[in-house]
Amino acid sequence: MRQEQSGDMPAADAPIRYRAAGFGGGTLGDMMRGAEKRLLARMMRSLGDPPVQVALWDGQEVSGGATPAMARVLIRDRAALLGLISDPELRFGELYTAGRIEVQGDLVLFLETVYRAMSAASAASASPNRLAGLFQRRRNNVPEARRNIHHHYDIGNDFYKLWLDSRMVYTCAYFQDQAQSLEEAQVGKMDYICRKLRLQPGDTVVEAGCGWGALALHMARHYGARVTAYNISKEQIAYARERARAEGLDDRVQFVEDDYRNIRGRFDAFVSVGMLEHVGPENYPQLGATMDRCLAPGGRGLIHSIGRDRPGPMNAWIERHIFPGACPPSLSQMTHLFEPFGFSVLDVENLRLHYARTLEHWLQRYESAADRVEKMFDAAFVRAWRLYLAGSIAAFTTGSLQLFQVTFTRGGNNAIPWTRRYLYE
Amino acid sequence: MRQEQSGDMPAADAPIRYRAAGFGGGTLGDMMRGAEKRLLARMMRSLGDPPVQVALWDGQEVSGGATPAMARVLIRDRAALLGLISDPELRFGELYTAGRIEVQGDLVLFLETVYRAMSAASAASASPNRLAGLFQRRRNNVPEARRNIHHHYDIGNDFYKLWLDSRMVYTCAYFQDQAQSLEEAQVGKMDYICRKLRLQPGDTVVEAGCGWGALALHMARHYGARVTAYNISKEQIAYARERARAEGLDDRVQFVEDDYRNIRGRFDAFVSVGMLEHVGPENYPQLGATMDRCLAPGGRGLIHSIGRDRPGPMNAWIERHIFPGACPPSLSQMTHLFEPFGFSVLDVENLRLHYARTLEHWLQRYESAADRVEKMFDAAFVRAWRLYLAGSIAAFTTGSLQLFQVTFTRGGNNAIPWTRRYLYE
Repeated sequence: MRQEQSGDMPAADAPIRYRAAGFGGGTLGDMMRGAEKRLLARMMRSLGDPPVQVALWDGQEVSGGATPAMARVLIRDRAALLGLISDPELRFGELYTAGRIEVQGDLVLFLETVYRAMSAASAASASPNRLAGLFQRRRNNVPEARRNIHHHYDIGNDFYKLWLDSRMVYTCAYFQDQAQSLEEAQVGKMDYICRKLRLQPGDTVVEAGCGWGALALHMARHYGARVTAYNISKEQIAYARERARAEGLDDRVQFVEDDYRNIRGRFDAFVSVGMLEHVGPENYPQLGATMDRCLAPGGRGLIHSIGRDRPGPMNAWIERHIFPGACPPSLSQMTHLFEPFGFSVLDVENLRLHYARTLEHWLQRYESAADRVEKMFDAAFVRAWRLYLAGSIAAFTTGSLQLFQVTFTRGGNNAIPWTRRYLYE
Repeated sequence: MRQEQSGDMPAADAPIRYRAAGFGGGTLGDMMRGAEKRLLARMMRSLGDPPVQVALWDGQEVSGGATPAMARVLIRDRAALLGLISDPELRFGELYTAGRIEVQGDLVLFLETVYRAMSAASAASASPNRLAGLFQRRRNNVPEARRNIHHHYDIGNDFYKLWLDSRMVYTCAYFQDQAQSLEEAQVGKMDYICRKLRLQPGDTVVEAGCGWGALALHMARHYGARVTAYNISKEQIAYARERARAEGLDDRVQFVEDDYRNIRGRFDAFVSVGMLEHVGPENYPQLGATMDRCLAPGGRGLIHSIGRDRPGPMNAWIERHIFPGACPPSLSQMTHLFEPFGFSVLDVENLRLHYARTLEHWLQRYESAADRVEKMFDAAFVRAWRLYLAGSIAAFTTGSLQLFQVTFTRGGNNAIPWTRRYLYE
């Protein structure tokens, strides 16, 4: 993570006390403080006036919302306040990371409160996608995709081991009931996907974006599939290969360090779990063409991806600092993977609340390991990833983000399940 | 139905035998026959060369396809042949209706064979939507929608009683297994929809396009809902009102003869089964706005509609003669109902094969009642509706048409089912 200046700011906070002509009896400092409060109140209104209390470095306070404050934020210096006002979506995360903004109380509750207010304000405004053009997403051609994926997934397997489940599954789990453990729910998710794909022994599967390889290995071990799994994260592929060898599955699972666009061969099933968010809508024609090229007649496919209720960009801070190039699609955007290629969508399931639950497990484990994370990186990194995990929980609980599982096949294929009951038996 | 000239055509078939200068020894009749065969063969190629045998009025035959013929068609006169060649999609149905084209053998199998060949040819061509601009769909403003619906649904309740189930449900049934009766499967469909909507006693429901009222009455009787049901078909509404009175449900179900655009009030659930096909994509913003206006906070919605894997027009003959104004949407088109209004799609299920099975039941009952249908109308009508039912079976079995059930709610509503297991318990 980029290091930012932390602690109190100099100069602007110094008690410069001279009289401002013509503006009554206050000092310039008084005037500035009045202006700051007004700007802060205006920013709060632009965010839909969330019921939160904002405390400034000098003891001043501003409260938003018509209801009692759900959370309290401390802004530690004037420059932080001005930065926040200039671009709250991007700068909040940067200033929180730098420790110049603190959230007192429950971070998830605070973020949910703000997201709900923003969502209501956005729905009330005439242009619901008003944030859409505010920043330029990085485009994901092959080398750029590699850099973007490296940024997030190659920061160290040891780091992810601290807070993921034992199989290192870094996507939404499927909790048959909310009391299930994360381990159970990740296995449950993998089984659910295999059942949706109706995997049979001997089936060939290609996986686009395989993470640390858990699903590919699960398909081979428990369903007798032969899997070719692609990923452009060097560290993840190295880890997955070692695991396949250790588990004696390297004759049935091949891990390929390459881009989805370079997938070759024909397969009975195509699966992609948690990759589409990184592909970018501008590349869906290429991904759809890949699916079309590699899916055998009668083949089945499943795409599992973070999504949105309507097209829009990822949160600017997340996109800049956590997931460069990321863009969760709406269903209308996802259809561009299917319709031009004659695929038939059989089933779409929205598992939004399951991702919130998954992230709650991750955040809990992360907090338990915060000391070790700080030793690996630094305090700013600990804060940044705390905010990312807590913010993601809030995004899923408030409906800013969705989780879509889409099952599809080739048009006219009648070897499809009669009902979905078999998934629940 | 419009009556067409039937039987053999005069003049063109008369044995005009004079020599054509410079074209060898054949008569003009020989030459014309040669030209006809070439044109017919070209038309067959344009349809993907389906393995069917075409016999002409004079005993000539043309066979398409690389495999043995699956069906045999008899074209009874030259004008019919030329009409068919000029516009096969529209004219086949018209000529079949007029008895000037006959299908010998299994009509559904014949249509499936042709649809499969056409679909393969379309997939292989560069412009998969090449048929999209070939005809002008009737647009469905309020008066036009009323005329279009009148055309199909007001031809007589007694006619539909001959071949629908006892509850008069004229939409895709849900067969828990393929052996279920039509009656069971229509009740099964209504229950499935009520469960997807999680109806509770006292819930208010608005139904857009209620047919003869079966679902509205079912919701009131078995789920304790209070239902307001809209339809612009005069005959259907009259029938539904009478039924509500007879069943003592008229205090809980109100049938309104009006357009979906005029729905007023707020409801816990919005449901529309088999109406969207008649709405037309150009009117989806109005339907979406209606849903947005009438759905209470936390409300649930379900849209059940014939659809397609990609945007495209309805079969031209069906659109002209059976369902004026109809246009089954693709999923990308359906998203225009949801995304601009902040709805969140929870579940999409494709029940294509269930509609094929439903139609098989209808066609079987229809054939058993063909004599009575002919007495009500005439032989041409019997043929037209036979072709419509058989063609619809083929459209669903070959994947030309889909059946989508889409469950949705307002964005950010967390009172949603944790999994879909409850639907199958």
